Amino acid sequence: MSSDDIGFFFNPRSIALVGASPKPSSLSYTILESLEKIGFGGRIYPINPRYEEIGGLRCYASLGDIDDVIDIAVLSVPAPGVIEVMNENFENVRGAVVVSSGFKEIKGEGERLEAELKRLAEAKGVRVIGPNCLGIYDTVSKLDTFFITRERVKRPDRGGLSILTQSGSFASMIVDEIASEGIGIARIVSYGNKVDVDETDCLAFLSEDEATKYVVLYVESVEDGSRFLDVASRCTKKKPVVAVKVGKRDTGLKATASHTGATASRYEAYEAAFRKAGIIEVDGYEELKDACRVLNSYSPGCGKRILIITNGGGIGIGIADACESLGLSVPQLSEERINHLKSKLPSFAAVGNPIDITGNGWDDHYADALKEGFGTEYDIAIVAVLWGPPLLREGIVDKLKTVADACDKPVLICSPGGKFTRKMSAEFERKGLPVFATPESAARAAAILAGGRKVNGQ
Amino acid sequence: MSSDDIGFFFNPRSIALVGASPKPSSLSYTILESLEKIGFGGRIYPINPRYEEIGGLRCYASLGDIDDVIDIAVLSVPAPGVIEVMNENFENVRGAVVVSSGFKEIKGEGERLEAELKRLAEAKGVRVIGPNCLGIYDTVSKLDTFFITRERVKRPDRGGLSILTQSGSFASMIVDEIASEGIGIARIVSYGNKVDVDETDCLAFLSEDEATKYVVLYVESVEDGSRFLDVASRCTKKKPVVAVKVGKRDTGLKATASHTGATASRYEAYEAAFRKAGIIEVDGYEELKDACRVLNSYSPGCGKRILIITNGGGIGIGIADACESLGLSVPQLSEERINHLKSKLPSFAAVGNPIDITGNGWDDHYADALKEGFGTEYDIAIVAVLWGPPLLREGIVDKLKTVADACDKPVLICSPGGKFTRKMSAEFERKGLPVFATPESAARAAAILAGGRKVNGQ
Repeated sequence: MSSDDIGFFFNPRSIALVGASPKPSSLSYTILESLEKIGFGGRIYPINPRYEEIGGLRCYASLGDIDDVIDIAVLSVPAPGVIEVMNENFENVRGAVVVSSGFKEIKGEGERLEAELKRLAEAKGVRVIGPNCLGIYDTVSKLDTFFITRERVKRPDRGGLSILTQSGSFASMIVDEIASEGIGIARIVSYGNKVDVDETDCLAFLSEDEATKYVVLYVESVEDGSRFLDVASRCTKKKPVVAVKVGKRDTGLKATASHTGATASRYEAYEAAFRKAGIIEVDGYEELKDACRVLNSYSPGCGKRILIITNGGGIGIGIADACESLGLSVPQLSEERINHLKSKLPSFAAVGNPIDITGNGWDDHYADALKEGFGTEYDIAIVAVLWGPPLLREGIVDKLKTVADACDKPVLICSPGGKFTRKMSAEFERKGLPVFATPESAARAAAILAGGRKVNGQ
Repeated sequence: MSSDDIGFFFNPRSIALVGASPKPSSLSYTILESLEKIGFGGRIYPINPRYEEIGGLRCYASLGDIDDVIDIAVLSVPAPGVIEVMNENFENVRGAVVVSSGFKEIKGEGERLEAELKRLAEAKGVRVIGPNCLGIYDTVSKLDTFFITRERVKRPDRGGLSILTQSGSFASMIVDEIASEGIGIARIVSYGNKVDVDETDCLAFLSEDEATKYVVLYVESVEDGSRFLDVASRCTKKKPVVAVKVGKRDTGLKATASHTGATASRYEAYEAAFRKAGIIEVDGYEELKDACRVLNSYSPGCGKRILIITNGGGIGIGIADACESLGLSVPQLSEERINHLKSKLPSFAAVGNPIDITGNGWDDHYADALKEGFGTEYDIAIVAVLWGPPLLREGIVDKLKTVADACDKPVLICSPGGKFTRKMSAEFERKGLPVFATPESAARAAAILAGGRKVNGQ
């Protein structure tokens, strides 16, 4: 099927919530709340024969009672109930999001129920996301089927990042972190056991989706490798795609199987497929977060020659170490550029790579070092900003931003520290300069822009 | 010299501040403020011929005018002034902290001044910390010579961690981060160019220091390798010592030289020396922070068999991947224990390693899984706590703490997320259960307890 087949999931005009309940402890109560809080503008139909009304909305006994086409039926009933509902009334439903667990991830009866769910979906011509998933969080169509409260898990604002994940726990974690870090989201799909809709279907949709500027994949397993490779290869020609493969080793493999019922094949096959498709592979959760942050500001595909500017010698060296351990290069300044920089910077500065303006330096020296140091010899600048030195003023944010814009090459800020530092980091971020709190994370982000650690031979 | 020679630096009764100034922009102003804010209880003598009084304290024209033995003279004057002061009046001074830069880290004249400083220190029998350093932050003797304001860089409370560093920027970074993370400090020494007092002198002191429970070394270079090896080997028999070597590769080496004037020899020699001395080597800033956090609660030297408990399948697998990539082992539960756990846990739990209580589980299931799963087959438990699932209640903090105490083996919490998660993480920390915000950091911390990644063959 083409990506058009699932496009309605990302632009629904009507949603039915099967298993709706007015009890705050129920998952469906939270789903209804999520839909309201994101401001879903379409029609919402709660379904539960035991109620006349839920949350001010008329409640229906069954899907068949609704005189409307249902774009998405969200099914939040125990697994056997899912089969029952689909057997009874599903004629006016285009797609289902089955959040319920109790399917393939449970052996025996669960596997039987999932096979039946698959058969029914095909027989009724209904596309199904799930089961055993959170469903969709979508800032474009204002859709949120996540059964986790906003008190505990924040939701991000609109932005260019879309995320595809089998794991609901990953979806919950990353949505919360990303919201706290101020990164924007277009669409997130948690597709769980993927009885029907899988990562490749979603990727095909995101590939054509104008709201999606870059994609993150959290992969436990891919079944149809050649179709994935085909779709992913086309997507990476249009926008960056980052993937993390979880369950790399023995233990991981076993846990993956019991988690979403997936059978992961050998990690090396994934590694090769990602490389072939032009996907940037990251190693785990930390690197994935770095990717989300840096791709929010810059596109990958630049070179790997790093210029480091710092006001603290130690951290400058730490960044150089971290860059080189990831296969990036930290070439020395040319004799000519050293002489030029020495004429522009005060005598207390140590001119090399790193360029160390030292604790005696201030904003203007940073701006000069970046402007005069970048040249054509470097592809990415990592600028370490330590807020201890008293001469450094808050004006550095605007000054670095101005020079960075003029350079038109990626400038990453590395700024470890506590409360004051974090306040200033938020200022940098507001201006579009991504900030990394450790030398390692800044280096990982630079490696992602340079094509990923695999590209760099690591 | 024995460690006793420098003990007075950590228990001073009198401090003179040479170059004292009432100007808020001066470094010495901040040093005076730092001394007052930490609540130094001894006598403070500002020295500056241009003032009669500074900050309510009588100001002296020179050290010779003070009718007292000066335990520490903090020198905050330009480099040539340091030599001048030491040439004039230094008879009543036991030790100096020279915070000024402009010495060996600057070629030519700076090297000459440093040689002269060294000659004078020996001639006058004065121990010198620095130059080009921040000096001492000490919660035991309430001493703070750091010329960085508390508005920008927070100071940690008292605790068991002591840190030795050449790099002042590292001292500033880590003190601020550690304060923000709620970890306590005994003593920090930033010794810069180490014209006299070096890491080995300080380590010898900390080795005997009851307030110091564990030591972190930030090493750019060590000159007297065999003495270091000897002192460090003795120290590690008494308390854990963690080290990071910066300037591992070519670029780093060059920058180190211009930073504190040090000449680092090949990295491999450090690696071997650390291993021989029983020092736990960490790879960079992130791992160093993980070490500070985990050693605040637990001692290293346990085995490397990891039990993982989670309420999210994805993160459980991510932790397993991260553990195995660091050489830790994540062995499966025995058949017997699986059966036992299945009798204790609800049917929705996936019993293996990880033990996944799933999003349907709550506090009691965590406690049961830890209590019944740990057994004798595992050395360290990593417990992933995701706050999305609505049934999980705040009581988990106390319940896990009670079981962890009864087990008497390290229990590390892994809890990624945003605002609510961070609030709950602070609760865990308050109870003494260390929390790590990513699967990778939890795994690194476990590897440190198991003896470090080098011990684990990585």
